[in-house]
Amino acid sequence: MRAHMIGEKLQLGIVGLGTVGSGVYDALMLNQKLLEARAQVSYEVRRVAVRHLERKRTTAVAVEPEKLTTRWQDLVDDEDIDIIIELIGGTTEAYQLVRAALEAGKPVVTGNKALLAEHGSELFALSKQRGTPLYFEASCGGGIPIVQSLQTSLICNKVKSIVGIINGTSNYILTSMARKKIPFQQALAQAQRLGYAEADPTLDINGWDAAHKGLILAMLAYGTPLSPDKIDVRGIEDIEPEDFEHAARLGYTIKLLVVIKHHPESRALELRVQPSFVPEDHLLSKVDDVFNAIAVNGDIVGETIFYGRGAGKNPTSSAVVSDVVLAMRECRLTGYHTGFHTYESDDVEKAEVLAPDDTVTPFYVRFRVQRDRCGVIADIATAFSTHGINISATSSSDGAPDENGVHWNSLVFILHACRWGQLREALQELSRLNTVKDRPVVLRMETFQDT
Amino acid sequence: MRAHMIGEKLQLGIVGLGTVGSGVYDALMLNQKLLEARAQVSYEVRRVAVRHLERKRTTAVAVEPEKLTTRWQDLVDDEDIDIIIELIGGTTEAYQLVRAALEAGKPVVTGNKALLAEHGSELFALSKQRGTPLYFEASCGGGIPIVQSLQTSLICNKVKSIVGIINGTSNYILTSMARKKIPFQQALAQAQRLGYAEADPTLDINGWDAAHKGLILAMLAYGTPLSPDKIDVRGIEDIEPEDFEHAARLGYTIKLLVVIKHHPESRALELRVQPSFVPEDHLLSKVDDVFNAIAVNGDIVGETIFYGRGAGKNPTSSAVVSDVVLAMRECRLTGYHTGFHTYESDDVEKAEVLAPDDTVTPFYVRFRVQRDRCGVIADIATAFSTHGINISATSSSDGAPDENGVHWNSLVFILHACRWGQLREALQELSRLNTVKDRPVVLRMETFQDT
Repeated sequence: MRAHMIGEKLQLGIVGLGTVGSGVYDALMLNQKLLEARAQVSYEVRRVAVRHLERKRTTAVAVEPEKLTTRWQDLVDDEDIDIIIELIGGTTEAYQLVRAALEAGKPVVTGNKALLAEHGSELFALSKQRGTPLYFEASCGGGIPIVQSLQTSLICNKVKSIVGIINGTSNYILTSMARKKIPFQQALAQAQRLGYAEADPTLDINGWDAAHKGLILAMLAYGTPLSPDKIDVRGIEDIEPEDFEHAARLGYTIKLLVVIKHHPESRALELRVQPSFVPEDHLLSKVDDVFNAIAVNGDIVGETIFYGRGAGKNPTSSAVVSDVVLAMRECRLTGYHTGFHTYESDDVEKAEVLAPDDTVTPFYVRFRVQRDRCGVIADIATAFSTHGINISATSSSDGAPDENGVHWNSLVFILHACRWGQLREALQELSRLNTVKDRPVVLRMETFQDT
Repeated sequence: MRAHMIGEKLQLGIVGLGTVGSGVYDALMLNQKLLEARAQVSYEVRRVAVRHLERKRTTAVAVEPEKLTTRWQDLVDDEDIDIIIELIGGTTEAYQLVRAALEAGKPVVTGNKALLAEHGSELFALSKQRGTPLYFEASCGGGIPIVQSLQTSLICNKVKSIVGIINGTSNYILTSMARKKIPFQQALAQAQRLGYAEADPTLDINGWDAAHKGLILAMLAYGTPLSPDKIDVRGIEDIEPEDFEHAARLGYTIKLLVVIKHHPESRALELRVQPSFVPEDHLLSKVDDVFNAIAVNGDIVGETIFYGRGAGKNPTSSAVVSDVVLAMRECRLTGYHTGFHTYESDDVEKAEVLAPDDTVTPFYVRFRVQRDRCGVIADIATAFSTHGINISATSSSDGAPDENGVHWNSLVFILHACRWGQLREALQELSRLNTVKDRPVVLRMETFQDT
């Protein structure tokens, strides 16, 4: 690796410009200023190896033709390239590439789970021997930060078990079968139409994609090399709609789980991928569609669960590009544990904290009002309307009489999204009414779809 | 910082031996061989600063009296101490200690959220200026790896929002109120009796504990210093049981949320802690009791959720001790991104992967059997019994006749936990019966409480 001067640009080489490769290239180009601020180093994508020079590209940012090559060897041989990003998939060429890059002292970022499940032990040993880092967050759980977490924030734990839903395609199929009561083949065909299953879905359905990821997690958690023949794998092909009915009756749902369990008494490791009954009161049973989740049970931390999108262009790109940022930081060896780096970028340079009055959500407001007191609803509704607030729904309920025999009712208003400032002023006005008892209970109604 | 030789022991200094301090000390002593293997460095706890020398200790491993001192200055002034672990809480002495340690070039591990919310900007700047790392995973979400994840695996994302349940006490109270329909004061008293709320629960209930954590997360996500007066905070004191009824009727539950949202159009940051309606179809609504969860929405990764225990001796110790391992690794600057380190320790040295036959769970088995065929249930039950498998429940349902007019029924058996080997052999035997059609559907029933 070159010794870098402050101000010099790190040079990146990308191998593979398919779905994930395009996402990674675009993220590196479009978020460049932010990433440079966070990595505290500037960078350039120097070369991109592709299979066919003439193929139409799907990147949002055009790749300059002079950067393209069909030979990955060109990137490994280029002395000026600092970091190699492997995104070609498969286990033959990718294996040659990663070996060659590590031997050339170039840190490698990869998300290739099949490669690491098959050749991980050897590649990790080579990485260690050469002192050249190998980053692979994207290999398990897509954008879910499970690899780093096992390597850092959870590292003091003896891992008692890891139980995960780590194949989005099979989870989508099982979710459809459960909800729509349709047979396996029909759910698979739907998933294929929607792009959630590939034309050849074999590895997703027979459990082997999950098994590859499980092997990597087990190696990380127990610091021991493992090969794919050690894992017991069954797929979801046999399950029929009625199995979901039986499961529901018993308080379960059915998920394809990877289960990694350490048995301290026998010092044995249980390692399997199988469709399983998951109790409905466990969070894993709520993980639906293409989402993934991984429950890690550590002897000190207890149960921790990671949830997110486990596959797809963007989540996988997130993991790859974050690894690239780490690789760049470590090339510079700047101390990055200083809490955070104050930085300026287009996105945050003028960031100001929003005044409470200017925050906007729907609201729930509950008043206690005196029963039989004419016009109190009209008063409240008028105050809202005067301040430009729309009422979405309202309801009331009777209360028991208080010590003076006065009846107080609960009056609930659900308000459309408005500024807190509007509502605050309306409530101030209403506080002067003597028909309203106490100050009302005001709760926000959080919306998540557009956050 | 001293320059370290291979084989030399890193020297740790712990300040504070209260609940978390005791947990950290015990984890460092009891898991020492494993931690040394993972950190690739050996260590020693050299000194421990406490308030009173004579107080009875709650550590599982006795602290040698000669290691104790009442002056934290002794640790900062000790040239042989490499890393300081601050666990005294508060913002006055802790502030002096962390400043002095960073100025002396000693990396600091802390979980002090109030300290970082109040003085973080200054301490992070000092850490950067001196090139001395400051680790603080334990300051937000206890054992949940949110700090490292924002600093590493999610770093390429523009954070669109962070929405979290990050105060266990208030979440416990809200969960009790919702489930038991009891008023706030009663739920609080119960939480205090069970040790989930302190004698003085003010900061948990009025939202400020969550606000401190939210400030730290916002600083990390946006790389910008923030002070506590920037956050809009409301507590849960006003909520009454009937609010949960209204919420449920509308499809919501009530949680105390920290909400951090970036508004790109106005470049403003929304920063607030408030009790809020959470839709029942969002995972955050399922986070009950003392558990915490944090949803991070990144522009590339989409929504990722972290779930676990957000407070308490063990989860907090997990985060502190993991930070200590990172600090030790970085003191040595060994490359640790090689995937995993093959290591041997008492726990894993002889770890062998369990044979599939030896894995034990309860099972669900569904047969298709010919209706009106005498004895089929007896045959199956006998096969199970012969192989030592106990039946926990059974049910059957009628099917339609097939093309030959033969009626096939579904016969479901729920089996108590047994070895897969036992069940496999029983099923093999049953496969020879011509009353059973196809091979049965066999699913595992995962148990989570004891994993």
